[in-house]
Amino acid sequence: VGEIKKPLRYYACSVARSLDILGDRWVFLIIRELFFGIRNYDQIHDHLAIATNILSDRLKILVDNGIVEKKKDALDKRKYVYKLTEKGLDLYPITLALLQWGDKWLAGDKAPPLFLYHKTCGQRLEPVMVCRKCGGTVHPRDVRYQENEKAI
Amino acid sequence: VGEIKKPLRYYACSVARSLDILGDRWVFLIIRELFFGIRNYDQIHDHLAIATNILSDRLKILVDNGIVEKKKDALDKRKYVYKLTEKGLDLYPITLALLQWGDKWLAGDKAPPLFLYHKTCGQRLEPVMVCRKCGGTVHPRDVRYQENEKAI
Repeated sequence: VGEIKKPLRYYACSVARSLDILGDRWVFLIIRELFFGIRNYDQIHDHLAIATNILSDRLKILVDNGIVEKKKDALDKRKYVYKLTEKGLDLYPITLALLQWGDKWLAGDKAPPLFLYHKTCGQRLEPVMVCRKCGGTVHPRDVRYQENEKAI
Repeated sequence: VGEIKKPLRYYACSVARSLDILGDRWVFLIIRELFFGIRNYDQIHDHLAIATNILSDRLKILVDNGIVEKKKDALDKRKYVYKLTEKGLDLYPITLALLQWGDKWLAGDKAPPLFLYHKTCGQRLEPVMVCRKCGGTVHPRDVRYQENEKAI
């Protein structure tokens, strides 16, 4: 990515910056596994049927970007465990949004492959994006954009 | 992707299904442009400094998957416009979540490069993912997962 000279507008939005790290299917599938509580290299490898060189490369990207922490396994010092940092845990809304879109648009006539429950209220979880200030839902046509020249 | 035989678990979640289409940086940057109201091939090309073969390929993926509609331009019949369908508009929570994460974690000491305003209430938009049933925020540790064997 680094080699291409991009017009100013390209990075005039955090979506592009986020995608520089996250815009890779394997990176996000690894993040999904970590959210499911999988912490072990071999288990991630088995679940995703991912080549070891790709898995090692993507884990390194995640560690280098402070999204994942690599620690010695307390139970077996020869092994490592991978854990989401605070920066990594903050990817949860993206994960939920990807899941919900797939549930709605890619499950065909079938029910969603995974049911989520909100432990806080005990109900089936249907995540929805709202405005923190007014609590209202956010439709694309309800949003106005303004470039912050100083930040680019 | 199609060639790799994946264990059952791989698709036991809509995140993987969504990423089969969306897990590509260019695909999502094109979606971002469309949310910004850009509808024209040449403008997307200029903004993203994307190679034309990649842009054409990714637009075709988006059209083939019913995310984007390609229509003749009403003002110039020799040209086409690209527009998000309902399925495409439903990608907005993913876009907002990517933007918010980048604003929080990748802007360094600077302010976000783009300010969003919620026209409905007039305030700066801070999108937050909540549970539709109880209205409470959704932290990864508040969620329980249950595989739906029938759907896989």
